[in-house]
Amino acid sequence: MSIINLDQISSKSLLPEVKEAMIAAIKQDYHNPSSQHRSGEQAAEVLERAREAVAQLINCAISKEVVFTSGGTESVNHAIKGVALANAEKGKHIITSNIEHNAVIRSLRRLKSSGFNVTSLSVDPSGRVNPQDVADAITDETILVSIMHSNNETGTIQPIEEIGRITRAKKVIFHTDAVDSVGVVPMDVQALGVDLLSFASNTFYGPTGVGGLYIRRGIRVFPLLDGGIQENNKRAGSENLIGIIGMGKAAELARQNMASWLTHVKRLKEKLLTELPNYIDEYILNTHPEHSLPNMVSMSIKYIEGESVMLMLDDDDIAVSTRSACATGSLRASHVLLSMGLSHADAQGTLVISFGIDNSEDDILAFLNSLKTVVTTLRDISPLYSKQNASSH
Amino acid sequence: MSIINLDQISSKSLLPEVKEAMIAAIKQDYHNPSSQHRSGEQAAEVLERAREAVAQLINCAISKEVVFTSGGTESVNHAIKGVALANAEKGKHIITSNIEHNAVIRSLRRLKSSGFNVTSLSVDPSGRVNPQDVADAITDETILVSIMHSNNETGTIQPIEEIGRITRAKKVIFHTDAVDSVGVVPMDVQALGVDLLSFASNTFYGPTGVGGLYIRRGIRVFPLLDGGIQENNKRAGSENLIGIIGMGKAAELARQNMASWLTHVKRLKEKLLTELPNYIDEYILNTHPEHSLPNMVSMSIKYIEGESVMLMLDDDDIAVSTRSACATGSLRASHVLLSMGLSHADAQGTLVISFGIDNSEDDILAFLNSLKTVVTTLRDISPLYSKQNASSH
Repeated sequence: MSIINLDQISSKSLLPEVKEAMIAAIKQDYHNPSSQHRSGEQAAEVLERAREAVAQLINCAISKEVVFTSGGTESVNHAIKGVALANAEKGKHIITSNIEHNAVIRSLRRLKSSGFNVTSLSVDPSGRVNPQDVADAITDETILVSIMHSNNETGTIQPIEEIGRITRAKKVIFHTDAVDSVGVVPMDVQALGVDLLSFASNTFYGPTGVGGLYIRRGIRVFPLLDGGIQENNKRAGSENLIGIIGMGKAAELARQNMASWLTHVKRLKEKLLTELPNYIDEYILNTHPEHSLPNMVSMSIKYIEGESVMLMLDDDDIAVSTRSACATGSLRASHVLLSMGLSHADAQGTLVISFGIDNSEDDILAFLNSLKTVVTTLRDISPLYSKQNASSH
Repeated sequence: MSIINLDQISSKSLLPEVKEAMIAAIKQDYHNPSSQHRSGEQAAEVLERAREAVAQLINCAISKEVVFTSGGTESVNHAIKGVALANAEKGKHIITSNIEHNAVIRSLRRLKSSGFNVTSLSVDPSGRVNPQDVADAITDETILVSIMHSNNETGTIQPIEEIGRITRAKKVIFHTDAVDSVGVVPMDVQALGVDLLSFASNTFYGPTGVGGLYIRRGIRVFPLLDGGIQENNKRAGSENLIGIIGMGKAAELARQNMASWLTHVKRLKEKLLTELPNYIDEYILNTHPEHSLPNMVSMSIKYIEGESVMLMLDDDDIAVSTRSACATGSLRASHVLLSMGLSHADAQGTLVISFGIDNSEDDILAFLNSLKTVVTTLRDISPLYSKQNASSH
């Protein structure tokens, strides 16, 4: 099955060097890095080397600020629940936005049921939070602000640095869910002024089920996983060393190749945006023209359902998405798009195209050609479309 | 560095077939099992096949009762915190034992700080909980009993089936931490009568950083990781598919080879126990003579420190442990051994020998020969030992 993967936000291929590193790790059969005797030393060294590679990718002051986790979801849960529980005596107010990933939304919902208050900020029609709204929402009770770095459905990037200046001035802990950003765009936790930052290995062609949480030194956070003293006592449990080695190698490559990877995906995005009007009409771009990830485009195609487009493109061996893989199974319209002011009908017509370094301009053209046919076919049978055509004449 | 690994409770080698399966998975580059399009289907199938293999190993009624986690620690945290938070309105009383793993102890400590009450039962000098004590401790407020299946320091197996009969009769949820048992001894969650059971892949020669939590159908548990709808909505986050494939293969092999693996490690244990008095004297066996894991022995050697023995054996390229790898870094005497009534001095003299299918009787003899020399050397310089010798004359 040879598929053109334009749903790279759901799954990316492992880089060949990452595969090699993981296969070598499997063959090496490392001992437990926490072993008391010498046989664990090599594993402990390899673990710390991976941590350094990851720390460099996000420009940590010290590598121990990186805690390895089982992925972006664990990182987000750890950050939000860990800060809330560790700082509850100071206050129980948390600020977030209306467009967060389910890991954030549901972690906060869990906290609400144990007495925390959550202010969820709206976004403007372009999908961005206004930093002033964050400043206005902060009270003496506020212990945490959690605003995502980039949105997983639209790719829109939030004004994190501006928010970071506010939270630092007001001495409120600031977490950002950067799961779809780290390894895609340059990231500097010190420049951003965040206290915690969640990320995942598969965003930069590493294995799934491995992630990291940046915790600035001195920030009070309870572990999500209590038990042994692994990860500098911040995350208990024997390490997924094979996965972590893969993540370390992927981080190293992402840092080295960031410039060329960026050039590549930017070219694909520009190709898609430039050509799109030559293939279909009447669509809305949900991706911010300026502040957005270079590797994805969200479009709402009028009068038809994104779900149908996605399935018909699948028949043409082209994989795209209607939203993030984490939200599949839900038939409700995207809370992100509704928050931006889209109608239910337009939100249902949404398609998310995300690409990676293994995509070519030919992939974009193949997609556009299929899309044109699919959209024509679906609009031909769309009652909404015929109604619209009738009324405009 | 060729080391005789008699610290298999800290780390085991991957089985060759597990390595092959994981390497094949890396090369295969599976898509996201939660993808909306066809490319994720194969991954979803592979994921469910692994779940079935794991479910069979512990005899689940249905495979969906298995939730994949990032290891034993996450499973334990999920079980204890998840049951507590989901059933808090019924009551806030939890029963455990004094000899649990840190994952249990610290999860419960976390709950205590948010208003839960914990009764921790003592064990008899053989290291076992009395089921009648569980029955007596249950009140109308009790929502959870968490008693480990086997102890990670002594290998002693608890009367889980008897406790299961009590909890079922009293309609209290019962979790057992079976991290060191599953894949080592036959396991049947239905016969045991437990509602939740934690386990880890590396116990049966699968990768570290992968585990499972059995949750009996109908048991009310909140997810530890909130977010997407993976794992039947019980555990959010993109799956560590490569690790899970390794765990599935390991589970399949553990089930197929359980009888021969048992025979092998039992022979090694018997060899060790039979020969030990021919090499050293004045030691205490902490492992229950009848109810204990077949793959480990805990001994407290009088007048000397286990830490010194371990380090000197390490110089002879023999890896043993003084306690579980998760507790290293702690210099305090083992809470498990103190709970059994050992003195601090004897507890400090403890050595844990754990073996696997890749150990031979020669490994045991090599250990015994080294141990004899090490013990003689250490006792020669032990003030405790000379005092004892002086007073006995």
